[in-house]
Amino acid sequence: MKHYRIATIPGDGIGKEVLPAARAVLDRVGRHHGLSLSYDEFDWSCERYLAEGSMMPEDGLDRIRHHDSVLLGAVGRPGVPDHVSLWGLLIPIRRGFRQYVNLRPITVLEGVPSPVSRALPGEVDLVVVRENNEGEYSQVGGRIFEGTPEEAVVQESVFTRRGVERVLEYAFDLAGRRGGRLTSATKSNGIVHTMPFWDELVAERAAEHPDVSWDQEHIDALAAKIVLDPARFDVIVGSNLFGDILSDLAAAVAGGIGVAPSANLNPEREFPSMFEPVHGSAPDIAGRGLANPLGAIWSASMMLDHLGHAEAGAQVMDAVRGVLASSPVRTADLGGTAGTDEFTGEVLSRLP
Amino acid sequence: MKHYRIATIPGDGIGKEVLPAARAVLDRVGRHHGLSLSYDEFDWSCERYLAEGSMMPEDGLDRIRHHDSVLLGAVGRPGVPDHVSLWGLLIPIRRGFRQYVNLRPITVLEGVPSPVSRALPGEVDLVVVRENNEGEYSQVGGRIFEGTPEEAVVQESVFTRRGVERVLEYAFDLAGRRGGRLTSATKSNGIVHTMPFWDELVAERAAEHPDVSWDQEHIDALAAKIVLDPARFDVIVGSNLFGDILSDLAAAVAGGIGVAPSANLNPEREFPSMFEPVHGSAPDIAGRGLANPLGAIWSASMMLDHLGHAEAGAQVMDAVRGVLASSPVRTADLGGTAGTDEFTGEVLSRLP
Ligand SMILES: CC(C)[C@H](C(=O)O)[C@@H](O)C(=O)O
Ligand SMILES: CC(C)[C@H](C(=O)O)[C@@H](O)C(=O)O
Repeated sequence: MKHYRIATIPGDGIGKEVLPAARAVLDRVGRHHGLSLSYDEFDWSCERYLAEGSMMPEDGLDRIRHHDSVLLGAVGRPGVPDHVSLWGLLIPIRRGFRQYVNLRPITVLEGVPSPVSRALPGEVDLVVVRENNEGEYSQVGGRIFEGTPEEAVVQESVFTRRGVERVLEYAFDLAGRRGGRLTSATKSNGIVHTMPFWDELVAERAAEHPDVSWDQEHIDALAAKIVLDPARFDVIVGSNLFGDILSDLAAAVAGGIGVAPSANLNPEREFPSMFEPVHGSAPDIAGRGLANPLGAIWSASMMLDHLGHAEAGAQVMDAVRGVLASSPVRTADLGGTAGTDEFTGEVLSRLP
Repeated sequence: MKHYRIATIPGDGIGKEVLPAARAVLDRVGRHHGLSLSYDEFDWSCERYLAEGSMMPEDGLDRIRHHDSVLLGAVGRPGVPDHVSLWGLLIPIRRGFRQYVNLRPITVLEGVPSPVSRALPGEVDLVVVRENNEGEYSQVGGRIFEGTPEEAVVQESVFTRRGVERVLEYAFDLAGRRGGRLTSATKSNGIVHTMPFWDELVAERAAEHPDVSWDQEHIDALAAKIVLDPARFDVIVGSNLFGDILSDLAAAVAGGIGVAPSANLNPEREFPSMFEPVHGSAPDIAGRGLANPLGAIWSASMMLDHLGHAEAGAQVMDAVRGVLASSPVRTADLGGTAGTDEFTGEVLSRLP
């Protein structure tokens, strides 16, 4: 019997509703595969910030450093500036644990309508590999002449060879194991220091991966093409900001943010990886049992995969696909009337 | 009789095919409105760069400084790095002439199919106002430890109070004259120096424009919403990079980049403004008479508007709408078989 200790951080709003759904699914499929999963729950959140002045304790990372994985619901709450919740919790974990790959699979599932008429189930199946540790998200920069007409701010993007190489290596490897195609998101025509550097490293990595056919697209044109012809993409790799934008966009093309999962991976497994749905805390529907748990359940399936239990992960996704393709049970964001529990129950009923 | 001197820069590829189409339309409608238009053509292009080592002469800006407008086709050519054509021609004009507003109207036209099923003619009619002079497009930055494992690059984004205020002022004004709604593109949760500053200035400007209802969205969520529900937007204002991405994306939602126009405006009219289609030089179809001139013709209509001839501009767009809505004549990118000339002829035939 394999034992795993999972740190769970439900966070705010619907995070607290989708996380139990993911756990229920994990427990069921785990039992079938002889996995023993135990959970330690942490109340790190905007609520905690309002009560105690910080999103997590100072030694937060140390408390979860030896867990096998982190499962996160969602963070964010009206009244707490978004950058507080991000830089007080998400970014320290992503960086502190060298989770330099943010993996976002985007698949049009049968039974989930897409706003894009050409985005058909079985045709759109891509993965966005987002650099998750450096780039445009940086603390470096500041403000000058505050409060005067000459006021100005600067913000530094920082890209390192090591940081870019490792995420590209991951993306080329992944493309080699998937459809053999990689698209790099760039903007080397407008952003003249970091993006030409990114392009150079892509070309270098490509030379080491002759099995992968690759191209690059400027981010503006790429965003357009994801809408015009989503089926043409296999693996898309982008910087922290570009990956963030493209993955939300592609998730919308695949039927909405409520469905999309993500994995923050430390591929070397020196530190725990973190799994979280792409959606936010959705204060407008929080507390009413209406949240779509699919993003969280899909993220849990990615966690099983990462822990080495690909078959268990696939069973979870088969159950989800089954519900969507052959039952009317779905949450309101997908046009249904089911609540979180009903949908989760339907998934559970299709698991061995 | 009003006389206007227009500087034309056909540029590369299909730029040289769509510019004559725009001129033909301008001449026809100008004659009807008693406008005398004369053109000075400049061969500034990647072709010139390959032959003479620069995209334009050193005193380029001085040669067109006293023209009433600039009409540009497209620049870019395989073999010339994109940043050369951009920083050697487009950016110097945009900055040198303080064209700090990049205006990109996005309308779903009847007869132009959209990839997004909910994007219907008469419902989607938005304008992206892009900051066009500063922000993420900057020369500031560089590389350290080149060629070593420690290699790193930094890129500085620079936002000034003056630069942000003036484009926001334009955007709020425009929203006041249109549907009264403004959406600001931000990413203040991830990009912690420039974007919170941007948000502050939006809130300041908003207080001066109580007639406009406004909100802000993070760029990732906004990209998704433009696909999920494009009809909800009126004026979207964004930084240089965000405006670039969102306008290409919204143009795709409205049926493709081949249709989209843009205006680089110096609202104070101290310098000429520049009008250019959003599409590139399309080397794959260049020289074959297949290019869609609609983006260039629409840009010419925006030029008439800017020069104070709104009625003439509207007549051009009425003619274009007429062709698309009630004839099968359209270019290959819109599913038709017409060439550049045939489409242009059809537009001309509907002008007074
Ligand atoms: C040529 C290119 C760099 C340019 C830009 O990003 O400004 C183009 O995409 C545009 O939108 O005009
Ligand atoms: C919370 C937010 C800032 C975050 C990000 O941009 O990384 C989110 O959009 C995501 O994609 O995980």
